[in-house]
Amino acid sequence: MKILHTADWHIGKKLHGYDLLSDQAYILDQIKKIAQEEAVDAIVIAGDLYDRSVPSEDSVRLLNQTIAEWNLTEQFPLLAISGNHDSATRLATGAPWFNQANFHLHTRLQEGLLPIEIGNTQFYLLPYFEPVDARIYFEDSSIRTIQEAMPKVMQEIVKSFDPSKKQILVSHFFVAGSSKTDSETKIEVGGLDGINGQLLSDFDYVALGHLHGKNALKMPNARYSGSPLKYSLSEKDQTKGVWILDTETLAFSFRELSPLHEIKELQADFATLLDPAFYSTINREDYLSILLEDRAVIPNLMNQLRQVYPRIIQVERANGFENESQTRLKVKNIKEKSPIELTKDFFTEVSQNDLTTQQKFWIEEGLHTELKKGGEE
Amino acid sequence: MKILHTADWHIGKKLHGYDLLSDQAYILDQIKKIAQEEAVDAIVIAGDLYDRSVPSEDSVRLLNQTIAEWNLTEQFPLLAISGNHDSATRLATGAPWFNQANFHLHTRLQEGLLPIEIGNTQFYLLPYFEPVDARIYFEDSSIRTIQEAMPKVMQEIVKSFDPSKKQILVSHFFVAGSSKTDSETKIEVGGLDGINGQLLSDFDYVALGHLHGKNALKMPNARYSGSPLKYSLSEKDQTKGVWILDTETLAFSFRELSPLHEIKELQADFATLLDPAFYSTINREDYLSILLEDRAVIPNLMNQLRQVYPRIIQVERANGFENESQTRLKVKNIKEKSPIELTKDFFTEVSQNDLTTQQKFWIEEGLHTELKKGGEE
Repeated sequence: MKILHTADWHIGKKLHGYDLLSDQAYILDQIKKIAQEEAVDAIVIAGDLYDRSVPSEDSVRLLNQTIAEWNLTEQFPLLAISGNHDSATRLATGAPWFNQANFHLHTRLQEGLLPIEIGNTQFYLLPYFEPVDARIYFEDSSIRTIQEAMPKVMQEIVKSFDPSKKQILVSHFFVAGSSKTDSETKIEVGGLDGINGQLLSDFDYVALGHLHGKNALKMPNARYSGSPLKYSLSEKDQTKGVWILDTETLAFSFRELSPLHEIKELQADFATLLDPAFYSTINREDYLSILLEDRAVIPNLMNQLRQVYPRIIQVERANGFENESQTRLKVKNIKEKSPIELTKDFFTEVSQNDLTTQQKFWIEEGLHTELKKGGEE
Repeated sequence: MKILHTADWHIGKKLHGYDLLSDQAYILDQIKKIAQEEAVDAIVIAGDLYDRSVPSEDSVRLLNQTIAEWNLTEQFPLLAISGNHDSATRLATGAPWFNQANFHLHTRLQEGLLPIEIGNTQFYLLPYFEPVDARIYFEDSSIRTIQEAMPKVMQEIVKSFDPSKKQILVSHFFVAGSSKTDSETKIEVGGLDGINGQLLSDFDYVALGHLHGKNALKMPNARYSGSPLKYSLSEKDQTKGVWILDTETLAFSFRELSPLHEIKELQADFATLLDPAFYSTINREDYLSILLEDRAVIPNLMNQLRQVYPRIIQVERANGFENESQTRLKVKNIKEKSPIELTKDFFTEVSQNDLTTQQKFWIEEGLHTELKKGGEE
């Protein structure tokens, strides 16, 4: 059988204040068309259907319409799980009725431990869960991380393995060794929310959600589908799409998606940007990050630019400002640095002194405590 | 066939800060047991399933569990509509799948215009709607009120009437002539949100939601079920329950519900209230409105009372305070007066003068404009 693997729709997400609902409706329609063209036997959605635990009414309407059309009108079996952005409780609304229509939506850890069998394949739909869920379910107070929970989860799952069938895991977490982008909203410290890829070796295929790049993980049997749209500037060079998997041969191929609006970077000086000869050659409707080459202060800059470019997500100065004495921290560098390095840089820039050994110790200790907290949110 | 008619669950409602979820779970379970005892063929829920358009996760969990148990486990057909407290869009989640299991949940005006047929009965499930919904659906910009929309709605509905069957309307609005309580949160001015009962005469039975008293309307063929719990002090003397209707004979009877905690008024002086000989004779777990007979200021009053009575919803002075010179407006009277009368009373109390004719005119004009706005919320 043939399955389509997608994830991380983040319905309701805004990009630098711009509502993406129409972009999302457009891309979901494109995914449906790919499913039709490929005549897939099931569609896997590996979590983060919504961007927030309490989505807007418009977001609810878009998801409800999309899944009703895919499942009830087009009759695609759907295999979905909740991600860390979804409220499991809210997303579960209606789920007990969906099964009848071959729409399996799992939102609780225990639901992921038994397979949904379609054709030659056993699907384990393991939703995003918190360590506390595993502590309660397995009655084991020693479980503090997802990594610690996973051996217990796997021990349960393999019990129902049918050797005559293929096994596919659908899940939503950070697999160690993956590379992240800006829009996943978690700071990774000490493997708190991540798991070791070794734990997934029993499956023929692991359909992952969470990370937004399709190449985030290099493992022979596991793939992130990535998000169907670019959800941050850091994703601008990623190719977005869905995986098509043949569960017999385990061959997979990537089908690209074309968004309604691209995310693009544009570098030029102000006069050029406002020159029709320049802007008539590019797609002004795209989400644009503008690198302005001028160093002068330009009054009413954003309003003037927005007359021509309606979707500006940021404007940065390529060459800094005139009369600028300090060396500013470059935004690009900031994104590559750890929180501890950033704190050191900030201290040095502000105080014009290096940190003492004692100060370094304090910062490391404090940040470690704070980031650990953040990692479990 | 036999139907059970309930409405106005308001799941997630708080009573003077007290969370009612356990009271609601308790009373919903009692309704289920009545449905089992009476062996009803369908359960009608006439709107306001939730108390708020964005209910809490705990509220979502309670509603989801309740309807799954009633419909999927107990196999009761369910006929439900959204009320003015529900978000139609959010409540509709899952609805396209429910039909298969004989759970019909209507949240849009147009869904109410065609019948759901069960046995000898045509059910028209007309959800709460706003005048703007009718303006758009009927393409008639002259519709400004529900009353103005209803003839058009009825014109559509009667087209599908099957004379060999009974017709039941399930709806959620204020029918003129009904009496209101404090917990319905709408101020009625000029029939803006209400409709004339005459418009409902074509139905064999009208199962209404919106008002919380079962006796709020005196019409031979229409009934409010009332809320299953007392949701304000003004409802303390109401009998709560559900209607059981025989659709052949059109006979109906009321089945009373017993809440986990009652709402009660208690009048005594402070010493008596704290005397075990007194409080051992009453149910201290009830939601209590206390009329305190003392006139002295009592330090730390609420904390002392709450040691004995854990669910105090208000404390009033039966005889006012000592040294009190002014005659205060009694809360009881306030509830019976119109906004215009209240404004006049307030002016008189504060200024010690009566209003001039001009002043009266201004107040009436101003309040009329304001209340009209409020009535459409």
